[in-house]
Amino acid sequence: MTEVNRYKVLFIDYLESNINTEREPKNLYEPIHYILNLGGKRLRPILTLLSCDLFGGDVNKALDASLAIEMFHNFSLIHDDIMDEAPLRRGKETVHQKWSVNAGILSGDAMLVLANQLLENYEGNLYKSLSTLFNKTALEVCEGQQYDFDFETSNNVSVDEYINMIRLKTAVLVATSLKFGAMIAAADKKDQENIYQFGINLGLAFQLQDDYLDVFSEEDFGKQKAGDIKENKKTILYLKALELADKNDKDKLINLYQSKVENDNKVEVVVSIFKKYNIPQLIEKEVKRYTDLAIANIECLQLDDHKKEVLKMLAGQLMARKI
Amino acid sequence: MTEVNRYKVLFIDYLESNINTEREPKNLYEPIHYILNLGGKRLRPILTLLSCDLFGGDVNKALDASLAIEMFHNFSLIHDDIMDEAPLRRGKETVHQKWSVNAGILSGDAMLVLANQLLENYEGNLYKSLSTLFNKTALEVCEGQQYDFDFETSNNVSVDEYINMIRLKTAVLVATSLKFGAMIAAADKKDQENIYQFGINLGLAFQLQDDYLDVFSEEDFGKQKAGDIKENKKTILYLKALELADKNDKDKLINLYQSKVENDNKVEVVVSIFKKYNIPQLIEKEVKRYTDLAIANIECLQLDDHKKEVLKMLAGQLMARKI
Repeated sequence: MTEVNRYKVLFIDYLESNINTEREPKNLYEPIHYILNLGGKRLRPILTLLSCDLFGGDVNKALDASLAIEMFHNFSLIHDDIMDEAPLRRGKETVHQKWSVNAGILSGDAMLVLANQLLENYEGNLYKSLSTLFNKTALEVCEGQQYDFDFETSNNVSVDEYINMIRLKTAVLVATSLKFGAMIAAADKKDQENIYQFGINLGLAFQLQDDYLDVFSEEDFGKQKAGDIKENKKTILYLKALELADKNDKDKLINLYQSKVENDNKVEVVVSIFKKYNIPQLIEKEVKRYTDLAIANIECLQLDDHKKEVLKMLAGQLMARKI
Repeated sequence: MTEVNRYKVLFIDYLESNINTEREPKNLYEPIHYILNLGGKRLRPILTLLSCDLFGGDVNKALDASLAIEMFHNFSLIHDDIMDEAPLRRGKETVHQKWSVNAGILSGDAMLVLANQLLENYEGNLYKSLSTLFNKTALEVCEGQQYDFDFETSNNVSVDEYINMIRLKTAVLVATSLKFGAMIAAADKKDQENIYQFGINLGLAFQLQDDYLDVFSEEDFGKQKAGDIKENKKTILYLKALELADKNDKDKLINLYQSKVENDNKVEVVVSIFKKYNIPQLIEKEVKRYTDLAIANIECLQLDDHKKEVLKMLAGQLMARKI
């Protein structure tokens, strides 16, 4: 998709032009430049630029907003990596690993402020609308992260609560990325709302598929990553299984998800229980349901068909992953 | 000073009315309510209300801004306490001690967002002016905290660099608290600038006096706290002494400030070097210089004499501490 590539190049050029390696104190700004340069898909800022473009706005005017989104996303990655004690991010050392936990906390804080500052490049009502949505989303991401923690130590998480958690932790930022573009293009309020909902549904579909693929990708090759099972992560697969399993299987699952020791056939047993209760099919259905909702959101947009097609292609590409 | 008490009561009432103990997720919001309820002088929000009042504004309209300031201040306390591994804050357990480091990081993050959100209660240009100043200040506080860290492991810090560090870490928030009130009262731009400078000079005087009093308070009773010396904190006293001492005394100081062991006569030796080079007198002079600058800033304000008197009394009370 050459369009998407064009936005990515535009974004990365802008990102690089915004990095001042001379900025002091060095120990505060170096970790910030480091994580911003780690790469990644740049999905969120691309969505902002794409959305602005589709709604007839000037893409260049969306660059600061797209950078604010990426800045915020990377702030949350730094702090999440500290909290998860993750040594690696995108195959490179995490900030707290390379510098220190303190550097990670403080540089992350500064990034949250820098994200806010980037929005100052907008004037008047647009400024207020953007930063109000930004703050709402930022708080929701914190709430999502907290629910995620809470769920780690709870044996009483419903599927609905899980969906709400990933909505907050992941989907709202995708939705905000898209809505930012629409707001800057001064799109109709209804379109702003629909593109936001598209982002929510796409984000949910994507995250649920992520859970699914962790266990059921490349299965034909007889190879399962199943990192989530090994790490006792209570994904949608596990929670759905708990809802449907009989007492015996439920207890077995709960037990297996409490063992810290790497049990040789743990993955095998868990997968067999998942399969017994049709979890893969049920989750595939859920992924399809949210993808269909996202497509329905696209249909509601007051855009030419070929523009709707661009969004559908994007959604299709994101959901077409098999691994 | 009954005026100040009135503002304090007004602020605390507003703070309490803003705390919703039912807010979910509980584990995110409880630490926030906990630290907000720990008490403290509430100096910064009081300054916002006082300043608004002096410039003829409606104090009630300054409440959200004063709460934003207090929210930000407490965000920085939570994260600083993690970084300093401090077990106590205002005589009570710190957030990371009572909950966990992760709770401290995440609740702190949420407080930074909540502070921003409180400013959304202002409209149009005022909103943008307030949040632009807020973001600038927030970033400066992060920078100040970083310099403070950097200085811990540097043997090459000048007095000017130290002053710049405390300006960023402490004084800019005091200055912003005051300017917020002036902005909400729609004070003349010159007055906004002068009240900000008053805050900077007052903040610097206060912090330098803090360094001074840590070692030279209650000296007549033969009792020195001197926690800063025991903890090898490179305060203005130490840095000034390094600038003035001969090679021999300088080496002695540097050596003493590297020992982790509690040396019985360490405080005594350090204090004698400080005295040999007239450090107490020199720092008293610096404190007076910044206090005088603050008074001069007051004189420049386009306010009635009795209002200027209120600010001078406030400055006098803050600087009158002997311990």
